[in-house]
Amino acid sequence: MIFTSKLIEDAVEAFCKLPGIGKKTALRMVLHLLKEQPEVTSMFTERIQRMRDDIRFCKECNNIADTDICSICENPSRSKELICVVENFRDLITIENTGQFSGVYHILGGLLSPLEGIGPDQLYISQLVERVKQHQPKEIIMALSPTIEGDTTVYYIGKQLKGANVLISGIARGVAFGGELEYTDEITLGKAIAKRLPVDVLQH
Amino acid sequence: MIFTSKLIEDAVEAFCKLPGIGKKTALRMVLHLLKEQPEVTSMFTERIQRMRDDIRFCKECNNIADTDICSICENPSRSKELICVVENFRDLITIENTGQFSGVYHILGGLLSPLEGIGPDQLYISQLVERVKQHQPKEIIMALSPTIEGDTTVYYIGKQLKGANVLISGIARGVAFGGELEYTDEITLGKAIAKRLPVDVLQH
Repeated sequence: MIFTSKLIEDAVEAFCKLPGIGKKTALRMVLHLLKEQPEVTSMFTERIQRMRDDIRFCKECNNIADTDICSICENPSRSKELICVVENFRDLITIENTGQFSGVYHILGGLLSPLEGIGPDQLYISQLVERVKQHQPKEIIMALSPTIEGDTTVYYIGKQLKGANVLISGIARGVAFGGELEYTDEITLGKAIAKRLPVDVLQH
Repeated sequence: MIFTSKLIEDAVEAFCKLPGIGKKTALRMVLHLLKEQPEVTSMFTERIQRMRDDIRFCKECNNIADTDICSICENPSRSKELICVVENFRDLITIENTGQFSGVYHILGGLLSPLEGIGPDQLYISQLVERVKQHQPKEIIMALSPTIEGDTTVYYIGKQLKGANVLISGIARGVAFGGELEYTDEITLGKAIAKRLPVDVLQH
Protein backbone atom coordinates (compact mmCIF):
# COMPACT_ATOMS: atom_id res chain seq x y z
CA MET A 1 0.00 0.00 0.00
CA ILE A 2 1.41 3.37 -1.08
CA PHE A 3 0.82 6.47 1.02
CA THR A 4 1.75 9.88 -0.27
CA SER A 5 3.03 11.10 3.09
CA LYS A 6 5.80 9.72 5.27
CA LEU A 7 4.06 11.03 8.38
CA ILE A 8 0.91 9.10 7.54
CA GLU A 9 2.95 6.02 6.64
CA ASP A 10 4.80 6.08 9.98
CA ALA A 11 1.59 6.52 11.94
CA VAL A 12 -0.13 3.71 10.02
CA GLU A 13 2.87 1.45 10.69
CA ALA A 14 2.72 2.32 14.40
CA PHE A 15 -0.92 1.25 14.59
CA CYS A 16 -0.16 -1.89 12.57
CA LYS A 17 2.18 -3.11 15.32
CA LEU A 18 -0.82 -3.47 17.65
CA PRO A 19 -2.43 -6.91 17.72
CA GLY A 20 -5.15 -7.48 15.14
CA ILE A 21 -4.69 -4.18 13.29
CA GLY A 22 -4.14 -4.28 9.52
CA LYS A 23 -3.16 -1.43 7.19
CA LYS A 24 -6.73 -0.49 6.25
CA THR A 25 -7.89 -0.31 9.86
CA ALA A 26 -4.73 1.60 10.82
CA LEU A 27 -5.36 4.15 8.06
CA ARG A 28 -8.94 4.55 9.26
CA MET A 29 -7.66 5.38 12.75
CA VAL A 30 -5.07 7.85 11.49
CA LEU A 31 -7.65 9.64 9.32
CA HIS A 32 -10.04 9.72 12.28
CA LEU A 33 -7.41 11.48 14.41
CA LEU A 34 -6.68 13.91 11.57
CA LYS A 35 -10.36 14.78 11.25
CA GLU A 36 -10.74 15.49 14.98
CA GLN A 37 -9.30 18.47 16.85
CA PRO A 38 -5.55 18.26 17.70
CA GLU A 39 -6.46 17.91 21.41
CA VAL A 40 -8.05 14.52 20.72
CA THR A 41 -4.68 13.19 19.56
CA SER A 42 -2.73 14.76 22.44
CA MET A 43 -5.17 13.27 24.95
CA PHE A 44 -4.84 9.89 23.23
CA THR A 45 -1.02 9.79 23.15
CA GLU A 46 -0.72 11.25 26.68
CA ARG A 47 -2.98 8.63 28.22
CA ILE A 48 -1.17 5.75 26.52
CA GLN A 49 2.25 7.15 27.44
CA ARG A 50 1.27 7.87 31.05
CA MET A 51 -0.11 4.35 31.42
CA ARG A 52 3.16 2.82 30.18
CA ASP A 53 5.35 5.15 32.25
CA ASP A 54 3.51 5.02 35.58
CA ILE A 55 2.16 1.49 35.78
CA ARG A 56 3.52 -0.75 38.55
CA PHE A 57 2.97 -4.26 39.73
CA CYS A 58 1.37 -4.84 43.13
CA LYS A 59 3.93 -6.02 45.68
CA GLU A 60 1.34 -8.31 47.26
CA CYS A 61 -0.34 -10.03 44.33
CA ASN A 62 1.54 -8.97 41.17
CA ASN A 63 -1.58 -7.29 39.79
CA ILE A 64 -1.26 -4.23 37.55
CA ALA A 65 -1.45 -1.23 39.84
CA ASP A 66 -1.25 2.56 39.96
CA THR A 67 0.58 2.47 43.31
CA ASP A 68 2.79 -0.05 45.12
CA ILE A 69 -0.23 -1.97 46.38
CA CYS A 70 -3.13 -2.54 43.97
CA SER A 71 -6.65 -1.28 44.58
CA ILE A 72 -7.91 -4.78 45.43
CA CYS A 73 -5.22 -5.61 48.02
CA GLU A 74 -5.65 -2.14 49.46
CA ASN A 75 -9.43 -2.46 49.82
CA PRO A 76 -10.24 -3.30 53.49
CA SER A 77 -13.53 -4.95 52.51
CA ARG A 78 -11.75 -7.66 50.48
CA SER A 79 -11.10 -10.83 52.47
CA LYS A 80 -7.42 -11.75 52.75
CA GLU A 81 -8.52 -15.21 53.88
CA LEU A 82 -9.32 -16.14 50.30
CA ILE A 83 -6.71 -15.97 47.53
CA CYS A 84 -7.73 -16.61 43.93
CA VAL A 85 -4.73 -17.71 41.84
CA VAL A 86 -4.93 -16.65 38.18
CA GLU A 87 -2.65 -16.86 35.18
CA ASN A 88 -2.73 -13.21 34.15
CA PHE A 89 -4.34 -9.79 34.44
CA ARG A 90 -6.95 -10.58 31.80
CA ASP A 91 -8.25 -13.55 33.84
CA LEU A 92 -8.29 -11.39 36.98
CA ILE A 93 -10.41 -8.77 35.19
CA THR A 94 -12.75 -11.47 33.87
CA ILE A 95 -13.33 -12.90 37.37
CA GLU A 96 -13.59 -9.42 38.87
CA ASN A 97 -16.33 -8.58 36.39
CA THR A 98 -18.48 -11.55 37.48
CA GLY A 99 -18.93 -9.71 40.79
CA GLN A 100 -18.84 -13.12 42.54
CA PHE A 101 -15.47 -12.90 44.27
CA SER A 102 -14.70 -10.83 47.35
CA GLY A 103 -11.24 -12.17 48.26
CA VAL A 104 -7.85 -11.14 46.88
CA TYR A 105 -5.86 -12.43 43.91
CA HIS A 106 -2.44 -13.75 43.04
CA ILE A 107 -1.22 -13.42 39.45
CA LEU A 108 1.26 -16.11 38.40
CA GLY A 109 2.30 -14.45 35.15
CA GLY A 110 1.88 -17.66 33.17
CA LEU A 111 1.53 -21.42 33.51
CA LEU A 112 4.18 -24.12 33.86
CA SER A 113 5.05 -25.51 30.45
CA PRO A 114 8.06 -27.81 30.07
CA LEU A 115 7.45 -27.81 26.30
CA GLU A 116 7.83 -24.04 26.07
CA GLY A 117 10.59 -24.01 28.67
CA ILE A 118 8.56 -22.18 31.31
CA GLY A 119 9.62 -23.39 34.76
CA PRO A 120 8.61 -22.32 38.29
CA ASP A 121 11.34 -19.66 38.42
CA GLN A 122 9.73 -17.69 35.61
CA LEU A 123 6.41 -17.53 37.44
CA TYR A 124 5.38 -15.89 40.71
CA ILE A 125 4.99 -19.22 42.49
CA SER A 126 7.57 -18.80 45.27
CA GLN A 127 5.95 -15.44 46.10
CA LEU A 128 2.60 -17.22 46.44
CA VAL A 129 4.07 -19.87 48.74
CA GLU A 130 5.74 -17.13 50.82
CA ARG A 131 2.48 -15.19 50.97
CA VAL A 132 0.53 -18.24 52.18
CA LYS A 133 3.10 -18.96 54.87
CA GLN A 134 3.12 -15.37 56.05
CA HIS A 135 -0.57 -14.47 55.95
CA GLN A 136 -2.09 -17.94 56.43
CA PRO A 137 -5.26 -17.59 54.35
CA LYS A 138 -8.04 -20.16 54.82
CA GLU A 139 -8.42 -21.05 51.15
CA ILE A 140 -6.68 -20.78 47.80
CA ILE A 141 -8.83 -21.02 44.69
CA MET A 142 -6.90 -22.21 41.64
CA ALA A 143 -8.68 -20.43 38.79
CA LEU A 144 -6.40 -21.66 36.00
CA SER A 145 -7.31 -22.84 32.50
CA PRO A 146 -8.38 -26.51 32.36
CA THR A 147 -5.42 -27.46 30.15
CA ILE A 148 -2.37 -29.68 30.70
CA GLU A 149 -0.34 -26.58 31.64
CA GLY A 150 -3.02 -25.43 34.06
CA ASP A 151 -3.29 -28.84 35.71
CA THR A 152 0.50 -29.16 35.96
CA THR A 153 0.68 -25.76 37.65
CA VAL A 154 -2.06 -26.66 40.12
CA TYR A 155 -0.27 -29.91 40.94
CA TYR A 156 3.10 -28.17 41.41
CA ILE A 157 1.70 -25.44 43.64
CA GLY A 158 -0.16 -28.07 45.68
CA LYS A 159 3.12 -29.88 46.30
CA GLN A 160 4.86 -26.64 47.32
CA LEU A 161 2.10 -25.88 49.81
CA LYS A 162 2.14 -29.32 51.41
CA GLY A 163 2.11 -28.86 55.18
CA ALA A 164 0.63 -25.37 54.98
CA ASN A 165 -2.75 -25.41 56.67
CA VAL A 166 -4.76 -24.15 53.70
CA LEU A 167 -7.63 -25.53 51.63
CA ILE A 168 -6.79 -25.65 47.91
CA SER A 169 -9.86 -25.60 45.67
CA GLY A 170 -10.43 -25.39 41.91
CA ILE A 171 -13.20 -23.64 40.01
CA ALA A 172 -16.17 -25.83 39.02
CA ARG A 173 -16.07 -27.43 35.57
CA GLY A 174 -19.06 -28.54 33.56
CA VAL A 175 -21.59 -27.46 30.96
CA ALA A 176 -21.85 -23.67 30.60
CA PHE A 177 -25.01 -21.87 31.73
CA GLY A 178 -27.23 -21.29 28.72
CA GLY A 179 -24.99 -23.65 26.73
CA GLU A 180 -26.67 -26.22 24.51
CA LEU A 181 -25.74 -29.85 25.20
CA GLU A 182 -25.52 -30.50 21.47
CA TYR A 183 -22.59 -28.10 21.16
CA THR A 184 -20.73 -29.07 24.33
CA ASP A 185 -17.55 -31.05 23.73
CA GLU A 186 -17.64 -34.74 24.65
CA ILE A 187 -15.01 -34.64 27.41
CA THR A 188 -16.72 -31.82 29.28
CA LEU A 189 -20.13 -33.44 28.89
CA GLY A 190 -18.83 -36.85 29.95
CA LYS A 191 -17.21 -35.43 33.10
CA ALA A 192 -20.30 -33.33 33.81
CA ILE A 193 -22.36 -36.51 33.86
CA ALA A 194 -19.84 -38.42 35.99
CA LYS A 195 -19.58 -35.55 38.48
CA ARG A 196 -23.32 -34.79 38.59
CA LEU A 197 -24.79 -33.04 41.64
CA PRO A 198 -28.25 -32.96 43.24
CA VAL A 199 -30.49 -30.44 41.46
CA ASP A 200 -31.04 -28.30 44.54
CA VAL A 201 -27.27 -27.93 44.97
CA LEU A 202 -26.90 -26.90 41.32
CA GLN A 203 -29.67 -24.34 41.45
CA HIS A 204 -28.41 -22.50 44.52
CA MET B 1 -16.26 -3.47 32.72
CA ILE B 2 -14.27 -2.94 35.93
CA PHE B 3 -10.51 -2.37 35.77
CA THR B 4 -8.45 -2.34 38.93
CA SER B 5 -6.20 0.49 37.73
CA LYS B 6 -7.13 4.03 36.72
CA LEU B 7 -4.12 4.18 34.38
CA ILE B 8 -5.34 1.09 32.51
CA GLU B 9 -8.89 2.40 32.48
CA ASP B 10 -7.81 5.74 30.96
CA ALA B 11 -5.68 4.04 28.31
CA VAL B 12 -8.50 1.62 27.41
CA GLU B 13 -10.89 4.57 27.12
CA ALA B 14 -8.41 6.37 24.86
CA PHE B 15 -8.28 3.42 22.48
CA CYS B 16 -12.08 3.05 22.62
CA LYS B 17 -12.48 6.51 21.07
CA LEU B 18 -10.93 5.20 17.85
CA PRO B 19 -13.39 3.92 15.24
CA GLY B 20 -14.33 0.25 15.56
CA ILE B 21 -12.49 -0.39 18.84
CA GLY B 22 -14.47 -1.88 21.73
CA LYS B 23 -13.36 -2.35 25.33
CA LYS B 24 -12.05 -5.89 24.87
CA THR B 25 -9.93 -4.97 21.86
CA ALA B 26 -8.71 -1.83 23.62
CA LEU B 27 -7.64 -3.85 26.66
CA ARG B 28 -5.80 -6.27 24.37
CA MET B 29 -3.83 -3.36 22.89
CA VAL B 30 -3.00 -1.88 26.28
CA LEU B 31 -1.79 -5.25 27.60
CA HIS B 32 0.26 -5.72 24.44
CA LEU B 33 2.04 -2.40 25.05
CA LEU B 34 2.60 -3.33 28.70
CA LYS B 35 4.16 -6.64 27.70
CA GLU B 36 6.57 -5.01 25.25
CA GLN B 37 9.58 -2.86 26.14
CA PRO B 38 8.78 0.76 27.11
CA GLU B 39 10.45 1.96 23.87
CA VAL B 40 7.67 0.32 21.84
CA THR B 41 5.12 2.59 23.51
CA SER B 42 7.25 5.74 23.18
CA MET B 43 7.77 5.03 19.49
CA PHE B 44 4.02 4.46 19.07
CA THR B 45 2.91 7.65 20.83
CA GLU B 46 5.66 9.75 19.21
CA ARG B 47 4.74 8.70 15.69
CA ILE B 48 1.03 9.39 16.21
CA GLN B 49 1.73 12.75 17.85
CA ARG B 50 4.25 13.82 15.19
CA MET B 51 1.79 12.90 12.44
CA ARG B 52 -0.93 15.05 14.02
CA ASP B 53 1.41 17.97 14.76
CA ASP B 54 3.30 18.15 11.49
CA ILE B 55 0.77 17.17 8.86
CA ARG B 56 -0.21 19.81 6.33
CA PHE B 57 -2.53 20.08 3.38
CA CYS B 58 -1.03 20.52 -0.08
CA LYS B 59 -1.52 24.06 -1.37
CA GLU B 60 -2.02 22.74 -4.88
CA CYS B 61 -4.41 19.82 -4.49
CA ASN B 62 -5.48 19.74 -0.82
CA ASN B 63 -3.87 16.30 -0.38
CA ILE B 64 -2.40 15.32 2.99
CA ALA B 65 1.27 16.30 2.87
CA ASP B 66 4.47 16.46 4.89
CA THR B 67 5.44 19.79 3.30
CA ASP B 68 3.58 22.69 1.68
CA ILE B 69 3.33 20.81 -1.60
CA CYS B 70 2.49 17.09 -1.52
CA SER B 71 4.78 14.41 -2.91
CA ILE B 72 2.54 13.87 -5.95
CA CYS B 73 2.32 17.52 -7.00
CA GLU B 74 6.06 17.85 -6.39
CA ASN B 75 6.94 14.84 -8.54
CA PRO B 76 8.15 16.09 -11.96
CA SER B 77 7.17 12.82 -13.66
CA ARG B 78 3.48 13.31 -12.83
CA SER B 79 1.54 15.00 -15.63
CA LYS B 80 -0.08 18.28 -14.64
CA GLU B 81 -2.20 18.07 -17.78
CA LEU B 82 -4.42 15.51 -16.13
CA ILE B 83 -6.26 16.25 -12.87
CA CYS B 84 -8.19 13.50 -11.12
CA VAL B 85 -10.88 14.97 -8.85
CA VAL B 86 -11.64 12.83 -5.77
CA GLU B 87 -13.82 13.19 -2.70
CA ASN B 88 -11.18 12.49 -0.05
CA PHE B 89 -7.73 11.19 0.83
CA ARG B 90 -8.94 7.60 1.11
CA ASP B 91 -10.16 7.64 -2.51
CA LEU B 92 -6.85 9.21 -3.62
CA ILE B 93 -4.91 6.39 -1.94
CA THR B 94 -7.20 3.78 -3.50
CA ILE B 95 -6.64 5.17 -7.01
CA GLU B 96 -2.92 5.66 -6.35
CA ASN B 97 -2.62 2.00 -5.40
CA THR B 98 -4.08 0.85 -8.74
CA GLY B 99 -0.85 2.15 -10.32
CA GLN B 100 -2.94 3.24 -13.33
CA PHE B 101 -2.85 7.00 -12.92
CA SER B 102 0.11 9.24 -13.64
CA GLY B 103 -1.51 12.68 -13.42
CA VAL B 104 -2.17 14.81 -10.36
CA TYR B 105 -5.17 14.96 -8.01
CA HIS B 106 -7.57 17.45 -6.52
CA ILE B 107 -9.30 16.58 -3.25
CA LEU B 108 -12.71 18.20 -2.81
CA GLY B 109 -13.09 17.31 0.86
CA GLY B 110 -16.62 15.98 0.37
CA LEU B 111 -19.55 15.98 -2.07
CA LEU B 112 -22.35 18.48 -2.56
CA SER B 113 -25.35 17.45 -0.50
CA PRO B 114 -28.25 19.88 -0.09
CA LEU B 115 -29.87 17.38 2.32
CA GLU B 116 -26.90 17.48 4.68
CA GLY B 117 -26.40 21.19 4.11
CA ILE B 118 -23.07 20.80 2.30
CA GLY B 119 -22.76 23.55 -0.30
CA PRO B 120 -19.94 24.53 -2.70
CA ASP B 121 -18.36 26.85 -0.11
CA GLN B 122 -17.58 23.94 2.22
CA LEU B 123 -15.71 22.08 -0.53
CA TYR B 124 -12.54 22.91 -2.46
CA ILE B 125 -14.43 23.60 -5.68
CA SER B 126 -13.46 27.25 -6.25
CA GLN B 127 -9.80 26.22 -5.78
CA LEU B 128 -10.28 23.61 -8.52
CA VAL B 129 -11.83 26.15 -10.88
CA GLU B 130 -9.02 28.58 -10.13
CA ARG B 131 -6.43 25.87 -10.69
CA VAL B 132 -7.93 24.93 -14.07
CA LYS B 133 -7.98 28.56 -15.18
CA GLN B 134 -4.40 29.11 -14.10
CA HIS B 135 -2.70 25.91 -15.25
CA GLN B 136 -5.01 24.95 -18.12
CA PRO B 137 -4.85 21.14 -17.93
CA LYS B 138 -6.06 19.10 -20.89
CA GLU B 139 -8.41 16.87 -18.95
CA ILE B 140 -10.21 16.57 -15.63
CA ILE B 141 -11.30 13.09 -14.53
CA MET B 142 -14.21 13.14 -12.12
CA ALA B 143 -13.56 10.08 -9.94
CA LEU B 144 -16.50 10.57 -7.60
CA SER B 145 -18.88 7.98 -6.16
CA PRO B 146 -21.74 7.11 -8.52
CA THR B 147 -24.38 8.48 -6.12
CA ILE B 148 -26.81 11.41 -6.31
CA GLU B 149 -24.30 13.54 -4.37
CA GLY B 150 -21.47 12.51 -6.71
CA ASP B 151 -23.52 13.24 -9.83
CA THR B 152 -24.67 16.60 -8.42
CA THR B 153 -21.06 17.56 -7.72
CA VAL B 154 -19.95 16.57 -11.23
CA TYR B 155 -22.81 18.61 -12.73
CA TYR B 156 -22.01 21.66 -10.58
CA ILE B 157 -18.29 21.59 -11.34
CA GLY B 158 -19.08 21.14 -15.05
CA LYS B 159 -21.18 24.32 -14.94
CA GLN B 160 -18.42 26.25 -13.15
CA LEU B 161 -15.90 25.22 -15.77
CA LYS B 162 -18.06 26.22 -18.73
CA GLY B 163 -15.93 28.15 -21.15
CA ALA B 164 -12.66 26.68 -19.84
CA ASN B 165 -11.01 24.73 -22.62
CA VAL B 166 -10.81 21.41 -20.75
CA LEU B 167 -12.19 17.91 -21.32
CA ILE B 168 -14.24 16.68 -18.36
CA SER B 169 -14.44 12.89 -18.15
CA GLY B 170 -15.86 10.41 -15.63
CA ILE B 171 -14.52 6.99 -14.62
CA ALA B 172 -16.07 4.04 -16.45
CA ARG B 173 -19.08 2.38 -14.83
CA GLY B 174 -20.20 -1.19 -15.37
CA VAL B 175 -19.86 -4.73 -14.15
CA ALA B 176 -16.77 -5.27 -11.97
CA PHE B 177 -13.88 -7.42 -13.25
CA GLY B 178 -14.26 -10.90 -11.82
CA GLY B 179 -17.77 -9.98 -10.65
CA GLU B 180 -20.55 -12.45 -11.30
CA LEU B 181 -23.51 -11.19 -13.33
CA GLU B 182 -25.90 -12.93 -10.94
CA TYR B 183 -24.78 -10.71 -8.07
CA THR B 184 -24.57 -7.43 -9.98
CA ASP B 185 -27.32 -4.97 -9.11
CA GLU B 186 -29.99 -4.41 -11.79
CA ILE B 187 -29.30 -0.73 -12.45
CA THR B 188 -25.58 -1.32 -13.06
CA LEU B 189 -26.26 -4.35 -15.24
CA GLY B 190 -28.99 -2.54 -17.20
CA LYS B 191 -26.71 0.44 -17.89
CA ALA B 192 -23.80 -1.88 -18.72
CA ILE B 193 -25.96 -3.46 -21.43
CA ALA B 194 -27.23 -0.13 -22.75
CA LYS B 195 -23.67 1.31 -22.87
CA ARG B 196 -22.04 -1.83 -24.29
CA LEU B 197 -18.75 -1.52 -26.18
CA PRO B 198 -17.03 -3.59 -28.90
CA VAL B 199 -15.20 -6.55 -27.34
CA ASP B 200 -11.81 -5.46 -28.65
CA VAL B 201 -12.24 -2.06 -26.97
CA LEU B 202 -13.17 -3.73 -23.66
CA GLN B 203 -10.23 -6.11 -23.67
CA HIS B 204 -7.57 -3.48 -24.27
